[in-house]
This record gives sequence, structure tokens and C-alpha cells, in this order.
Amino acid sequence: MLEQVVCLAAVTVLGLLEQAYFALMVIYARRKYSVSPPATTGPPEFERVFRAQANCSEYFPIFVFSLWLAGVFFSQAIAVICGLLYLYGRYRYFHGYAESTQGRLGPLYFSAKVQWVLIALAGLGITCTMIQVYL
Amino acid sequence: MLEQVVCLAAVTVLGLLEQAYFALMVIYARRKYSVSPPATTGPPEFERVFRAQANCSEYFPIFVFSLWLAGVFFSQAIAVICGLLYLYGRYRYFHGYAESTQGRLGPLYFSAKVQWVLIALAGLGITCTMIQVYL
Amino acid sequence: MLEQVVCLAAVTVLGLLEQAYFALMVIYARRKYSVSPPATTGPPEFERVFRAQANCSEYFPIFVFSLWLAGVFFSQAIAVICGLLYLYGRYRYFHGYAESTQGRLGPLYFSAKVQWVLIALAGLGITCTMIQVYL
Ligand SMILES: N[C@@H](CCC(=O)N[C@@H](CS)C(=O)NCC(=O)O)C(=O)O
Ligand SMILES: N[C@@H](CCC(=O)N[C@@H](CS)C(=O)NCC(=O)O)C(=O)O
Ligand SMILES: N[C@@H](CCC(=O)N[C@@H](CS)C(=O)NCC(=O)O)C(=O)O
Repeated sequence: MLEQVVCLAAVTVLGLLEQAYFALMVIYARRKYSVSPPATTGPPEFERVFRAQANCSEYFPIFVFSLWLAGVFFSQAIAVICGLLYLYGRYRYFHGYAESTQGRLGPLYFSAKVQWVLIALAGLGITCTMIQVYL
Repeated sequence: MLEQVVCLAAVTVLGLLEQAYFALMVIYARRKYSVSPPATTGPPEFERVFRAQANCSEYFPIFVFSLWLAGVFFSQAIAVICGLLYLYGRYRYFHGYAESTQGRLGPLYFSAKVQWVLIALAGLGITCTMIQVYL
Repeated sequence: MLEQVVCLAAVTVLGLLEQAYFALMVIYARRKYSVSPPATTGPPEFERVFRAQANCSEYFPIFVFSLWLAGVFFSQAIAVICGLLYLYGRYRYFHGYAESTQGRLGPLYFSAKVQWVLIALAGLGITCTMIQVYL
């Protein structure tokens, strides 16, 4: 049974590593721009890195939930492809945002689209399963 | 086996859609009140919308984890009912908070109570399963 | 099959209770230091409590995902031990941070190490499963 989810698990671990990487980047930015906790404001360069990580963290559970629902109820292979695209989009979002406020927009639209696809696939798969089970 | 969780999955997708809706509301509020990222402060109207979404996002994983634990270890039907009530409470919380600081309190108490029920059902179901397995 | 995850579920519920406790502490701190929502800034004593909870919330989904992946793909017993250590570390982090900015560092390093162990065990278990399934 684990083979039906092992690739979803692998993408999730990749996502965990990405989130850890973003958090380390915030710690480095705190040192570089001398912004000690509990402060969350400072030079715009710091604030962009801080918010980039905060935004990715906010969406991370949403991403993982939709990845697993799409993978279990629709197709593991397609969910995995979307998952990798999403993580790549978030990587570019983080670095784009760190460079400039504008820089976050392209990757944001990209990862938002992938996120919508995952939610749609999850919804479709769940609807089909419900029809099979209850009709 | 999927029929034992398909309704939990459906409620989770509803929750994902609700979170997406809250995020879109923050984007609209950023435009309306001209609060460009990385700023998170501005007129109180904006800050209430921003914090409403931040608060819902903070509790979203907690909600989903307790929904699934209660649904798998206690009862899918009862967990689903609590889940729908919670999402309804959070919808009212978001709009109540957006209108006034006071406006968030009623729905907050409501969804907090439902959240506690979900955690209690999860705890009860897990305790019973542990007793069956280990005693 | 539930016996292979029931202890992971129990640790997760403990984590939910810990997160609820942190949230209640923020509510008390808001009253004590008169920081009404939507404000998130105020005296340093308040800001440290606020950030301590925010930081724990940010990492909570990461913790739960890695706990379950390590528990399912590697070993439930070892994941449970790491999970309990992590929650203990986060308890000390919260109270250390509430007391002083320095006070968060020891517990932070501790829980970060445990978090890395969980991610590594998850990665190892998933890799072994992939080898068995695909080679
Ligand atoms: N959101 C975190 C991400 C990185 C992190 O976890 N930092 C550690 C070490 S500096 C911390 O304790 N941050 C305090 C905080 O988040 O308020 C931050 O802003 O610092
Ligand atoms: N928490 C987000 C919710 C909405 C969102 O995801 N916004 C996008 C487009 S404006 C973003 O990149 N926000 C930047 C940020 O969160 O700092 C916000 O404050 O903006
Ligand atoms: N992060 C929350 C944690 C505690 C909580 O959930 N508080 C409730 C009652 S004061 C709330 O509605 N907070 C408003 C907010 O988070 O902006 C906070 O800062 O207040």
C-alpha cells in the first residue's frame, strides 16, 4: 500500500527541506541586517526575505494537504509532477521576492496556478470516489 | 478503505477553498488600501483583514489534523459535522474581524469550541484504540 | 492497521494541546499588556510571547508531517520518542523566549536538531521503500 504514496512522501520531504532552507535564509538575513528577534521589521531587504519565508510557510500546509488528496484520490504521478513544479515555483518566488517586490509576482502566479490544479484534481478525485461509494 | 475518509477529504478541500478565498481577500485589501508587500501594517481596516487571514491560516493545520484524527479514530460522520461548523465559524470570524475588532469575538468562541470538540474526540478515539491494541 | 500509527496520533494530539496552550498564553499576554488585535507590536515582553507562539505555529505542520513520514516509513517507536523530545523542546523554547531573547536559543537548537533527525529518518525510510518498490 505504501507504494501508492511513497512518491508523495518523497515530494513532501523535499518540501520540508525547502522550508528549512527558507528559514535558514531568514536567520542569515537577521544576522546580515542586524534584526534581532522579536523584531520583524527593518530594512526592506530584510523584510522581503522575512515575508517571503512567512508567505511560503503560510501556504505550505495547504500545498501538502492538496498534494496528498490529489495523489491519493486522483493520481500519484500527476500530483508528484505538480508538487515538484510548485516547489520549484516557490524557490523562484523566495529569491524573486528577496531581490525585489516585483520579482515575486511571476513565480507567485506560477505556483498559484499549480496550487489551483492540485486543489481541482483533489476535488475531482474526491467527487468521483464519493459517487462510487454513495451512488 | 477510501470510503472511510472520503468525507474528511471533501471537508478538507472545502477548507482549502476557504483559505484561498481569505488569501484573495487580503490581496484585494492590499490594493484597496494601497498596502504593498512587504508591508503588513496600514489603516486598521487593512490590518484587520490581514490579521483575520493570518489567524485562520495559523489554525488551519491544527483544524485539519484534528479533523482527520477525530474522523479516523472516532467517527467520520461526527468529525465531518464539526468540520463544517468550524469552517462556517471561521467564515463568520473572517468577516466579523474585517468589520470590527469586536466582531471577531462571537465566531471566535464558536469555532474555538468546535475545535476543542474535535481535539477531544480525537483524544477519546485514540485512547480507546490504544487500550484495544496494548491492553 | 491503526496500531501502526496510533502512537503517532497520540503525539500529534499532544502537539495540538501544546499549540492551544501557546495560543492561550498569547491571549493572556494581550490582556496583561493591553495589546488589542489587530496590533501585534507592543512592549518587548508581549512581542516575545507573540513571536514565540508564531514561531512554534510556523514549524508545527513541518513537525507533524515529518513525525508521520518518519513513523510510517521508518519506525513508529523512534518517531514517537523524537516527537516527544521535540514537543518538550518547544515548551522550553516558548518559555525561554517569553523570558528573554537569549532564553530561546538553547531550546531552539535542541528542537531544531530533533527536527532534523525526524526529516532524516523520513528521508531514509522513504528512500528504502522506493528502492524496494522500484528496483
Ligand atoms: N520566522 C523565523 C524564521 C527563522 C527562525 O526560526 N529563527 C529562529 C532563530 S533567529 C527564531 O527563534 N526566530 C524568532 C522568531 O521567529 O521570532 C524568524 O523570523 O526568525
Ligand atoms: N499573507 C499574504 C496573503 C495573500 C498573498 O499570498 N499575497 C501575495 C500577493 S500580494 C504575496 O506575495 N504577498 C506577499 C506577502 O505575504 O508578504 C499577504 O499578506 O499578502
Ligand atoms: N496569534 C493570535 C493567537 C491567539 C488568538 O487566536 N487570539 C484570538 C483572540 S485575542 C484572536 O482573534 N486574535 C486576533 C489576531 O490574531 O489578530 C493572536 O495574536 O492573538
